[in-house]
Amino acid sequence: MAGKEIAIVLVSGGMDSCVTAAIANQQYEMAFLHVRYGQRTEAREYQSFTALADYYQVKNRRVADIPYLKEIGGSCLTDESIEVPAANLERKGTPISYVPFRNTHLLSLAVSWAEVTGVKKIFIGAVEEDSSGYPDCRKAYFDAFNQLLKVGTKPGSGIEVETPLVGFRKKEIVLKGAALNAPFHLTWSCYQRVDIACGRCDSCALRLRGFREAGIDDPLPYQVK
Amino acid sequence: MAGKEIAIVLVSGGMDSCVTAAIANQQYEMAFLHVRYGQRTEAREYQSFTALADYYQVKNRRVADIPYLKEIGGSCLTDESIEVPAANLERKGTPISYVPFRNTHLLSLAVSWAEVTGVKKIFIGAVEEDSSGYPDCRKAYFDAFNQLLKVGTKPGSGIEVETPLVGFRKKEIVLKGAALNAPFHLTWSCYQRVDIACGRCDSCALRLRGFREAGIDDPLPYQVK
Repeated sequence: MAGKEIAIVLVSGGMDSCVTAAIANQQYEMAFLHVRYGQRTEAREYQSFTALADYYQVKNRRVADIPYLKEIGGSCLTDESIEVPAANLERKGTPISYVPFRNTHLLSLAVSWAEVTGVKKIFIGAVEEDSSGYPDCRKAYFDAFNQLLKVGTKPGSGIEVETPLVGFRKKEIVLKGAALNAPFHLTWSCYQRVDIACGRCDSCALRLRGFREAGIDDPLPYQVK
Repeated sequence: MAGKEIAIVLVSGGMDSCVTAAIANQQYEMAFLHVRYGQRTEAREYQSFTALADYYQVKNRRVADIPYLKEIGGSCLTDESIEVPAANLERKGTPISYVPFRNTHLLSLAVSWAEVTGVKKIFIGAVEEDSSGYPDCRKAYFDAFNQLLKVGTKPGSGIEVETPLVGFRKKEIVLKGAALNAPFHLTWSCYQRVDIACGRCDSCALRLRGFREAGIDDPLPYQVK
């Protein structure tokens, strides 16, 4: 019996990457890639990453460090002197939690790994609809990135980025995850805290709204729910 | 008097980045970015980077480390178990010195810095003509990357990558550098050695041919010339 094709899945440890892994798991043998870039909740995210990798019995896992993104700062996620604001889901424009050009760093790490190992599929749990307002989470960004891959990797590499959730609302992500038995209890989404989720940052607010609209209870503990 | 506009220049320490800096220097105040990714000659390149930054009196300089690219290997530049082959300038295909998707890592580091500081211009000394055969040194790659910048950075960031040498032959790069008094004696291009250039790797061979065709003496010491 031929083995399944391998896909690299970028797993932060949040609910979106968890559901993305649940989707990729249906068709591929998964290799997990986690990136630590000096974000406030780095250690907590790593813990969720490990728990998800264990849950899905992923042997092939890799952790990359980019201390540089914290060194240059410019985001409330990486610069401790910038406060994480209370959620405002009606806000227009790019939020202060945006880490400049972060997704291109993450994808580049995955692409280099894919190119060395001959892997063709890379999954990332980015969400455009009903989300954060980050420029590098939009479908147009991933289309441009896939175009870049065609000219920027070895001829015939065939590497492509898959974003199964990019057009999903958070509610739909919760429903999809529930349908696939995704282990939401192992994930972490809060931007700010590492013990009990704050319930007040953008990330908590979007997550809580998604669970509420889906009529499913979020298994994580919150300060404010 | 208004100051000059700032440009970030990616400076490896080789002849191409040296001439690129000489070009950028005509119009911009330069900020230098150097990347260590575990390449064999990392320490020697860093020495050239520092010498070039001193020569051009660049105060704003930054060094980024990406140990990850050495960890995954796959190139004779980062994996010590793969021998650096003798030059073969007629070879077709991607050479073993290609570091998978490296330039996207380098550019991403520059873009994140540019986005945090409001800089709009990034210079990189990539060469397509008469060069190494790396997919991520082609004009088509940089065109696709500039397209990615339009959708992947904050709206209105205006960040753009400039590749003044992408269509130059090595001979023309030497002539351009000579015309601008570029300090070739401070640079390092050899893939393999850090004291006396080997004269036999692809990078040395391309450099030596460029100087020879330009009728200018390469100031570096070589084992074989």
